[in-house]
Amino acid sequence: MLTAKKNLSQPGQYASTDKVEVIGFNKKDPAGKRPSSMFSILGPVRDHNQVEVSFTDARTLGLDAPVRESGDIAGSGACTIKGPEGEVDLKEGVIVAKRHIHMTPKDAEDFHVKSGEIVSVEVDTGKGRKTVFGDTVIRVSEKYALAMHIDTDESNASCASGIVYGVIVK
Amino acid sequence: MLTAKKNLSQPGQYASTDKVEVIGFNKKDPAGKRPSSMFSILGPVRDHNQVEVSFTDARTLGLDAPVRESGDIAGSGACTIKGPEGEVDLKEGVIVAKRHIHMTPKDAEDFHVKSGEIVSVEVDTGKGRKTVFGDTVIRVSEKYALAMHIDTDESNASCASGIVYGVIVK
Repeated sequence: MLTAKKNLSQPGQYASTDKVEVIGFNKKDPAGKRPSSMFSILGPVRDHNQVEVSFTDARTLGLDAPVRESGDIAGSGACTIKGPEGEVDLKEGVIVAKRHIHMTPKDAEDFHVKSGEIVSVEVDTGKGRKTVFGDTVIRVSEKYALAMHIDTDESNASCASGIVYGVIVK
Repeated sequence: MLTAKKNLSQPGQYASTDKVEVIGFNKKDPAGKRPSSMFSILGPVRDHNQVEVSFTDARTLGLDAPVRESGDIAGSGACTIKGPEGEVDLKEGVIVAKRHIHMTPKDAEDFHVKSGEIVSVEVDTGKGRKTVFGDTVIRVSEKYALAMHIDTDESNASCASGIVYGVIVK
């Protein structure tokens, strides 16, 4: 059982108090020590294992990870996960999350977009890195709360920290 | 004297064989061990000290660094630099490089842009992260070779690794 530590932007989703070690590959010396890092487990438990990394993480850990939507893990990256009860080799499941916007059907109507539509989002925090994020997937559900998800590389590239608003420019 | 190890994109500019330790700040425990990382020295020697970091580096090292053009260091971030001969506290000089395009006057004519102009550049490597980089500065000199400079956070945000071409969209 996972214990919720911090709620995420989507209702019912949380970062748990539990962490596991994600072990990658030593590309320079395959027989040498494998690089690893501690990752928080997000809940509630899903029906497949998925490890979301940034390309910065992927490089540090020697992981090959494609840009994918959450859940689309066929043929994605491999790693080893180690926890208090043992370790498991994942043949796939390591992805770099494709940027996306969660919204309700009402939001989708207001923004004139459909579930699965690919849009562009302009972000300008006035700090010298105005960015238009293309390839952003619209995801619609009654269960969602309006929020765009980008990773740390993307937030760094656009000086987007804290609460930031973007504009869908299509 | 610096010894050139690897030429950079701009004629005469090189990464040297020498490295120094860049020491940041322990924000959680100011009296504790300060985080640090080894940085390559670029040559030839310039008339001021400048430390270019990504926001990923800045976070790891506890550095406060604004987005600036190279050379525009007044009021930028502080750090300590340690080398084989001793260490020095820099009151300013730590920046996150503002993205820019080096080009010759002939290139500027061909692209219909001027030195100092701010443009946007679309990069689409087909890997799911099409990005338009706004706030990109045009820098013109006979000494330059045509190249856009972005940092690792920006390349990760746009899946731009290896040789990548962009389009100036203004």
